[in-house]
Amino acid sequence: MDCIFCKIVAGELPAAKVYEDKRFLAFLDINPINKGHVLVIPKEHHEALTNTPVDILKDLIAIVKTLAPAVVSGAGGAGFNLGVNNGKVAGQLVDHVHFHIIPRLDNDNLHPWPGKQYAEGEKESYAQRILKSLES
Amino acid sequence: MDCIFCKIVAGELPAAKVYEDKRFLAFLDINPINKGHVLVIPKEHHEALTNTPVDILKDLIAIVKTLAPAVVSGAGGAGFNLGVNNGKVAGQLVDHVHFHIIPRLDNDNLHPWPGKQYAEGEKESYAQRILKSLES
Repeated sequence: MDCIFCKIVAGELPAAKVYEDKRFLAFLDINPINKGHVLVIPKEHHEALTNTPVDILKDLIAIVKTLAPAVVSGAGGAGFNLGVNNGKVAGQLVDHVHFHIIPRLDNDNLHPWPGKQYAEGEKESYAQRILKSLES
Repeated sequence: MDCIFCKIVAGELPAAKVYEDKRFLAFLDINPINKGHVLVIPKEHHEALTNTPVDILKDLIAIVKTLAPAVVSGAGGAGFNLGVNNGKVAGQLVDHVHFHIIPRLDNDNLHPWPGKQYAEGEKESYAQRILKSLES
């Protein structure tokens, strides 16, 4: 197995852990957006959110709810971004599903991505295509 | 109630809906990061992820898993970012918990936020502070 997160789970690579139970692990991202940035993973290897069994996702989001306020407090922050990058195009760097908890501080100089504008009727046509994909 | 998402739920404001059941609603963000950008919300009003009952979060993440591939497909994308902004400092604009599903396209020119570097021992001291906050 060549997965670095599986190696952390197995104790073959070090990590600064902040939560562990039988099925889940949370540790500090070594390349944090803000210091205190945490990754929460299931120990079982699943490539992306969309391949992860729903019972694992449900237990994972419950851990996020418990852990995120401690991340914010430990980092001296005032809020957080939860993020999951699904696929290489979305910036997923490790193919083992992970939820990012990024503490946010006043004046941390991180800016949201800019918004786009829909042309007249375009929003509805996107909604139709999504609905059609859901049905198929 | 002055919440625009509660007004969408009540049918008092329009939205391009892509999913609805008794307890949840998903619709297109009117100011999308990429076209097809969807918001998933519980109909019940809760301010932020951290105030939302865990059973609601669990059902919400299950809907995200089902809906996200349809968002990607409907938008002609190749992946997606899931995001939740918790608190004003994190860019939360509407105080009714919402999960963003942002479809990602090749060459969409959206760049991840830059990473920071920990000094020697600093990672471990952040982990200690988070652990202490978890215990308290």
